[in-house]
Amino acid sequence: MLPGELFHPGSVAVVGATRNPEKVGYGVFSNLVQAGFPGPVYGINPGGGEILGHRLYPSIDAIPGAVDLGVFVVPPNAILEGIPRLAAKGMRAGIVVSAGFKEIGGAGVALERALREAATSAGVRVLGPNCLGLINTHASLNASFSRGTPPKGNISFFSQSGALCTAVLDWAIGENIGFSKFISLGNKADISESDIMEYLADDPDTRVILGYVESIDDGRRFLCASRQVTCRKPVILVKAGTTAAGARAASSHTGSLAGSDRAYSAAFRQGGVLRAETVEDLFDLALGFSMQPVPKGDRLLILTNAGGPGILAADTASLLGIPLAEIPESLRGKILPKLPATASLANPVDVIGDARADRYRDVLSAIGGESSIDMVLVLLTPQAMTEPEETARATVSASAGMGIPVFASFLGEASVAESRRILTAGCIPNYPVPERAVRAAHAMLRYSRLRTADFPEEGESSSGRPPIAERVIGEALAAGRRTMGEEESRGVLEAYGFSFPRHAFADTSAAAVESYRSLGAGQVVMKIVSPQVLHKTDVGGVRLGLSSEEEVARAFVEVTSSVRRLSPSAWIAGVSVQEMVAGGRELILGMSRDPQFGPLLMFGLGGIYVEVLKDVAFRVAPLSRRDAEEMVREIKSYPLLAAYRGSEPADEEAIVEALRRVSRLSCDFPEIQELDINPLLVLPKGKGIRAIDCRMTIAEAP
Amino acid sequence: MLPGELFHPGSVAVVGATRNPEKVGYGVFSNLVQAGFPGPVYGINPGGGEILGHRLYPSIDAIPGAVDLGVFVVPPNAILEGIPRLAAKGMRAGIVVSAGFKEIGGAGVALERALREAATSAGVRVLGPNCLGLINTHASLNASFSRGTPPKGNISFFSQSGALCTAVLDWAIGENIGFSKFISLGNKADISESDIMEYLADDPDTRVILGYVESIDDGRRFLCASRQVTCRKPVILVKAGTTAAGARAASSHTGSLAGSDRAYSAAFRQGGVLRAETVEDLFDLALGFSMQPVPKGDRLLILTNAGGPGILAADTASLLGIPLAEIPESLRGKILPKLPATASLANPVDVIGDARADRYRDVLSAIGGESSIDMVLVLLTPQAMTEPEETARATVSASAGMGIPVFASFLGEASVAESRRILTAGCIPNYPVPERAVRAAHAMLRYSRLRTADFPEEGESSSGRPPIAERVIGEALAAGRRTMGEEESRGVLEAYGFSFPRHAFADTSAAAVESYRSLGAGQVVMKIVSPQVLHKTDVGGVRLGLSSEEEVARAFVEVTSSVRRLSPSAWIAGVSVQEMVAGGRELILGMSRDPQFGPLLMFGLGGIYVEVLKDVAFRVAPLSRRDAEEMVREIKSYPLLAAYRGSEPADEEAIVEALRRVSRLSCDFPEIQELDINPLLVLPKGKGIRAIDCRMTIAEAP
Repeated sequence: MLPGELFHPGSVAVVGATRNPEKVGYGVFSNLVQAGFPGPVYGINPGGGEILGHRLYPSIDAIPGAVDLGVFVVPPNAILEGIPRLAAKGMRAGIVVSAGFKEIGGAGVALERALREAATSAGVRVLGPNCLGLINTHASLNASFSRGTPPKGNISFFSQSGALCTAVLDWAIGENIGFSKFISLGNKADISESDIMEYLADDPDTRVILGYVESIDDGRRFLCASRQVTCRKPVILVKAGTTAAGARAASSHTGSLAGSDRAYSAAFRQGGVLRAETVEDLFDLALGFSMQPVPKGDRLLILTNAGGPGILAADTASLLGIPLAEIPESLRGKILPKLPATASLANPVDVIGDARADRYRDVLSAIGGESSIDMVLVLLTPQAMTEPEETARATVSASAGMGIPVFASFLGEASVAESRRILTAGCIPNYPVPERAVRAAHAMLRYSRLRTADFPEEGESSSGRPPIAERVIGEALAAGRRTMGEEESRGVLEAYGFSFPRHAFADTSAAAVESYRSLGAGQVVMKIVSPQVLHKTDVGGVRLGLSSEEEVARAFVEVTSSVRRLSPSAWIAGVSVQEMVAGGRELILGMSRDPQFGPLLMFGLGGIYVEVLKDVAFRVAPLSRRDAEEMVREIKSYPLLAAYRGSEPADEEAIVEALRRVSRLSCDFPEIQELDINPLLVLPKGKGIRAIDCRMTIAEAP
Repeated sequence: MLPGELFHPGSVAVVGATRNPEKVGYGVFSNLVQAGFPGPVYGINPGGGEILGHRLYPSIDAIPGAVDLGVFVVPPNAILEGIPRLAAKGMRAGIVVSAGFKEIGGAGVALERALREAATSAGVRVLGPNCLGLINTHASLNASFSRGTPPKGNISFFSQSGALCTAVLDWAIGENIGFSKFISLGNKADISESDIMEYLADDPDTRVILGYVESIDDGRRFLCASRQVTCRKPVILVKAGTTAAGARAASSHTGSLAGSDRAYSAAFRQGGVLRAETVEDLFDLALGFSMQPVPKGDRLLILTNAGGPGILAADTASLLGIPLAEIPESLRGKILPKLPATASLANPVDVIGDARADRYRDVLSAIGGESSIDMVLVLLTPQAMTEPEETARATVSASAGMGIPVFASFLGEASVAESRRILTAGCIPNYPVPERAVRAAHAMLRYSRLRTADFPEEGESSSGRPPIAERVIGEALAAGRRTMGEEESRGVLEAYGFSFPRHAFADTSAAAVESYRSLGAGQVVMKIVSPQVLHKTDVGGVRLGLSSEEEVARAFVEVTSSVRRLSPSAWIAGVSVQEMVAGGRELILGMSRDPQFGPLLMFGLGGIYVEVLKDVAFRVAPLSRRDAEEMVREIKSYPLLAAYRGSEPADEEAIVEALRRVSRLSCDFPEIQELDINPLLVLPKGKGIRAIDCRMTIAEAP
């Protein structure tokens, strides 16, 4: 929990305030004064003197009153010294604007650690270092070196890039978009995006939370926080650096398809966070949430004075799966007499190019209370008879009583500039082109569905590490091994309820024949058993469909000699003779441990679906039931599982259960770095699944 | 060929000019006068009088001089009457602004036909009707009822929506973006987008051609025109109404996956047209082409004063496959001394938040002449020390001598407004967010590759309709049939060089056994032969892998009785016994005739790839060799054809040849409406393909 004083201090001290207007210490102090902060603002500067009519104090100790919030614009050592002193004056929260910490590497890393420790031991929460500061318009607090203060509003924005903060501030001021809080996170030595999100969830002055993130240090905390926050308020994030960290050395299929961006995407989705593609999207969405109610349904009405833009809006709606509302007969009857004969009463409703404001007003007021319409988009192109300002006013006043979200796109520039200001002032989000308006409406719709769907329960708690699994993994680690082939992995998976086909180990040709007999002499599979061989097929280590003693005997010789030839350094323990399972479909189920978010689970159909088409779904463990169900249905090849060309539907329930078992296993054993169950055969409904092959890579738990 | 007088008239007559400023006839006349058209402008109004200091003539005959261009703002009948009269005065081109034609249906359709005929017989080319008019800034000609005239420039824009023209004009004037020609196409009774594109290709004042299209009437003409135009100038189009026409009743796989938008996409691609997703994209791309040279390579340098926006730009570049340029040691040596120690010399080059204009200038001037960099993107966020205007000036002057394209994104609003004006005036395309700048750069890159790749030769000309194919199709049509099953279609395809497996027809069980023997008694397939059965598998009409006389005899009874039961109305001719082809991969190759673009060919892997994954490629016939090769490589499952898990690569050359054969067939026989060859088996390299099943739907050629 962040202390309230961070955003609502009674008093502020600026350590490093200065009269030199070129310096950041001046910028911060003058912003505090100019934004009209009502409490005392103490500037500290060893030289003393005066700044903007305020006395400068030569030291912290010289401050006459209590201090709630301290802003530091001095070198690192002075900060470390100042924190306990200001804490003694009552400081609960600090903002470290100064740079020279982790971002410079070397000594800076140690300084940042010292900063965190100093803050912790003084009981102070610290924003930064290396940040722009923060702004709370509702407390007339601008504790940053920004250029100007944005107007009051209900959008809050946090950013890991200070420069992006300045650009967004400039835009907010220029476009007159109201903001509640601006938070520059800097190096996040103490306060993280999760702290901020949790605070803003409770903040009555914040309606929508925006953020720009480059990296999230504690992925699990973030996931937890976002789940709690997003069911109360929308959170929209831009994640930068999506493609840089893609390439990771990985020995498993899952590992090679995973990667940091997959983990962020999965976590955002599981946490209910809306991901914006660009900074422009971020603010397009913010405007909608900030100004309009969340839609209760998806039926959109488009009102326009021109065909073209109406079609463009309808195209985008169709692309995003938003249906155009049917115009009921009753509404038609109300509108018809007000419009010229050539107007179109289909949807888009086209009031025709010579429409003045009255036609818009007539249609909009007829819509009020119409239960078959959930959202309205008002389009205008400036033609000869068009009245942009009056139409904007009509839109604003009609929307007030409607109770459903209204969006606008008035196209053009000079002719519509004033009307756009009227729309913004009247809380109608407006966009330069219709497509962006529809996309914003779509995001609000996604949010409304997410919220009404309730959040999935957390993954059920583990009943502890099964002793067998613990022993197998422990022994492998003790032996210095980092990979576990099928033979060892099988024991671990069996402890989590996975079934394998019946099988028997054999280290000679005669033993293999004996195993074949013991399995009932049906069709069998033979696979090499060697801890060094992880990709058995590549070295000729697998034979399918053996159905006689002769075939089995011959296969033993062929398999072992092929592996000996193609993988000469591998120690061959023998072979596994396995009952062959018929009638199943191949799946792959895997896990790769993400450094930020922990176990990242993957699901897909096996073979070409994963290898060539990369048709896979990812989620972060622990998986809720709904998460697992969504994973299965998300892949493009899902229809092949359901029931394809007369085949029986696959046992989907068993797949969901298997996913949750791997989720539990991954959470129980942080030693497991990567895991592939490939292939996992799913049988028809009610007949369950069989793991056919599996392997893991392991490491000492951190 | 359009007459030059349409854009460069020596004199203009406005039929329907009026002194009433509420009327369109006033708007057109006053625009002509206010834009400073240098030649005589004659207003015609039966009432006579004066307008804006010009005499109004009571009739066309009263005009004292010759007229090159006539603008009509009078009711339809007066236009039909006026055209020959003005033609007698020398008119070569007319603009019909008035509405009341095809768009009102009924009598309007006939009037539009009459308009076209009147124009043709008078030797006049006509723009419209139902349009805004046209503007040519380079001739000081504004023959439209727009609000204002845009500044002179090199972008030309045509639009099927007049309202969109007005919005774009408003934007151009507000943002001070230069335009060359504005053309509102209206109903396109005579002059089409193809005419306009061909004219603009030759126009020295046009550098980039933009268009908004809702429908293209003559698809083949458009394809032909765009091929010729796009190798000279970039053409960027927005196609609206993409999703509306999707649903078509179709009995073939190809038909159900085709649809109008697929045809437009294929034709745009084959014609070298860049397709913009939104109107915003359209103008983002236009700015780049208008102001900067086309890049010669793809290596991008990003220069920034802040990390965040640099990462966002790099992300977008990576997503679009644009590599960041390596900074060579020599360049590093030149830049290093000019930057502070904390600046980053990786790419993005980060000159750090306190950079003034000089650091930008130093880096930009060092880049000049560096052969390892193909494109530059300059980013700026307004921070305390930032000098946006001076930096804009530095960017403009540095770019002048560089010879490579330079883009900019100065983030924010109020602080960067003036600097953006400087950039625009200095021909540096600038964008509100970095992502849009990178997307514009990417489009220019795509265009440069398209242009350097040379255009594919046209499909080779047909050697005439093979008599066998002609007879088969002719007989089916004469018999009133609209579908042709495998037996009949086979003959047509064989005439185009397709091979089928050996096969024999049998109408009794005994005959089937005899056929089996005659094929050499290997594995065979049995298929029902019935003109009424198009989906044989669905009615139990196919049996695979029969390998004994007993099986064949039994299969005959089972197949015929199953079809009799499940498709009781079908007349059963017998069965086809076919040699079974081993070792091939299943493809589907189809054609569906698009109303605008003609034969639309489809290619994909058969079975689930087409049915579930919809992994298919489309092109318009005739196919060039390159078109066919691209189709094969475009599908996601292409790796399965190349060489997958040790299997031999498929005979790709034979697939390309098959595609071109279907292309020729489709062009030779307009009677064929739809065609599916499914499955088409492709054998390993050098072994060709075998058509296993096929069917067509036919209709009398139009």
